[in-house]
Amino acid sequence: MIEELQDYLAKEFDIHFSDPRLLAEAFTQASYVNEHPNQNLKFYERIEFLGDAVLELIVSEYIYKRYPELPQGRLTRLRAAMVCEDSFSKFAKECHFDQYIRLGHGEELAGARQRPGLLCDIFESFVGALYLDQGRPAVEKFVQRVIFPKLDMGWFDHAVDAKTSLQEFLQRDGDVLIEYHLLEESGTENNPAFHVDVAADGQVIADGQGSSKKQAEMQAAQRALKKLRAKK
Amino acid sequence: MIEELQDYLAKEFDIHFSDPRLLAEAFTQASYVNEHPNQNLKFYERIEFLGDAVLELIVSEYIYKRYPELPQGRLTRLRAAMVCEDSFSKFAKECHFDQYIRLGHGEELAGARQRPGLLCDIFESFVGALYLDQGRPAVEKFVQRVIFPKLDMGWFDHAVDAKTSLQEFLQRDGDVLIEYHLLEESGTENNPAFHVDVAADGQVIADGQGSSKKQAEMQAAQRALKKLRAKK
Repeated sequence: MIEELQDYLAKEFDIHFSDPRLLAEAFTQASYVNEHPNQNLKFYERIEFLGDAVLELIVSEYIYKRYPELPQGRLTRLRAAMVCEDSFSKFAKECHFDQYIRLGHGEELAGARQRPGLLCDIFESFVGALYLDQGRPAVEKFVQRVIFPKLDMGWFDHAVDAKTSLQEFLQRDGDVLIEYHLLEESGTENNPAFHVDVAADGQVIADGQGSSKKQAEMQAAQRALKKLRAKK
Repeated sequence: MIEELQDYLAKEFDIHFSDPRLLAEAFTQASYVNEHPNQNLKFYERIEFLGDAVLELIVSEYIYKRYPELPQGRLTRLRAAMVCEDSFSKFAKECHFDQYIRLGHGEELAGARQRPGLLCDIFESFVGALYLDQGRPAVEKFVQRVIFPKLDMGWFDHAVDAKTSLQEFLQRDGDVLIEYHLLEESGTENNPAFHVDVAADGQVIADGQGSSKKQAEMQAAQRALKKLRAKK
C-alpha cells in the first residue's frame, strides 16, 4: 500500500520521499500496528502532532501577508476555518489519502477510513512527514496547490463574513460605494422572506434571498463575490 | 522607547532589526495608537497572531526531536505547558520586555504593563516581528536561549508527570530499576501524611512528602530530577 502511495504521490504531486518509512508512519493507524506486533511499526500520531503546527504556521503566514489590512480577530477566525477537521478531512479526500491509510480490521469494519477525524489526522501527518523528509518548501508547494486556491473559491467566506469580504474585494483599488436595496418583503410574520440586491457604484451585481434582511444581504454578497471572482 | 529597546536588544541578545517599524508595531498596544491618532501607528495584534504560530511550530519541532519516544498525548501536554500565557508572560518579564511596551495612559494607570495577558501577547508579537524581519534562524537562536533551557530546569515537569520524567531521565542509557519506598504513614484519617523515598538501582536519590502516596512519590521524583539535573 505504501509503494502504491509513493507511485501516486510521484505521479500526482511530483513528491518523492527520501525516507519512505516516514510516509509509512504517517499513513498507519495504531490499530494496524497492534495487529502486526512483529513488524516494529510506528503509527501516525507523533508526526501528526508536528504536521499540525507546520500547517498552522504556513497558513497563518500566508493569510497574514495576503490580507495586510485584516485585523487579528478576523485573521484568527479565518485560520480557524482553514485549519480544522472539516477542511483537512475534505483536503485528505480530495487528495485520495483515504485509499492509502493502513487500518486494523476492526477499524476498517467500523468505517474508520471515511471518518473525518481520521482523515484530518492523516492530512496533518502527511504534511508532518513531508516536512521532516523535505523541509518547508516542499510543504509550501503542496499547500499552495491543495489549500490556498480554496480561498479564492470562497470555501472560507463564512469565516470572514461575506459582506466584509465583498467590501474588501471591491475596495482594493480605491473607494467604491456599496449599497444593498430591499426589493421585496413577503411571506408571513412567522415565516418572513426578504429579497435584496447589492450594487457597486450604482451597478447591480447580484441579488439574494433569506428569512431576514441580513441573511438576504449575506447571500447577495456571496453571489456577488462569486461572480466577481469568476471574472478575474 | 523603541530606540532604547533597539539598544537593549543589540546589547543583550545581539539582535539588530533591519526594519525598526516592525519592532515598534510589536511593542505598541491599541490604547497607545488611539492616543496618538496622527502618527499613523500600528498595534501589535496582527504580528502577535503570526508570532503565536511561529512559536508553536518551533517548540513542537524541538520537543518532537528531543523526545523521540514521547507519545503524542504527552507531547501535546508538554507543548501546552510551554506555549501558554503563564510561560510566555514569564519569559517576557525575564527579557524585560515589560519596560518597553507603549501603552495608553488609561491602560498604564490600570496596571496593564504587568498583566500576564499583555506580557504574553508582547512576547508573541516580538517573536513575530523577529521572524518577519530576520527569518526563522534568528527566532531559533532567541528561543534556544530563552525557552529551551527551562526544559532542563524542570519548568514544565508538571506537564509530563515527574515520575515518568525521572524514569526517562534515568533510563536514557539503559535499564535502571526505580523503586519508591514508603517510609512513614502518619497524620489522621482526614489529614493523612505520607513520606516516601525514591531509589535508582538501590541507591536512594531523594525523598518526598504529601497527603497521598502518589503526591509524596511525585515530590520525590521532582526532587530527584532536580538533583540529577544539577549534577549534569
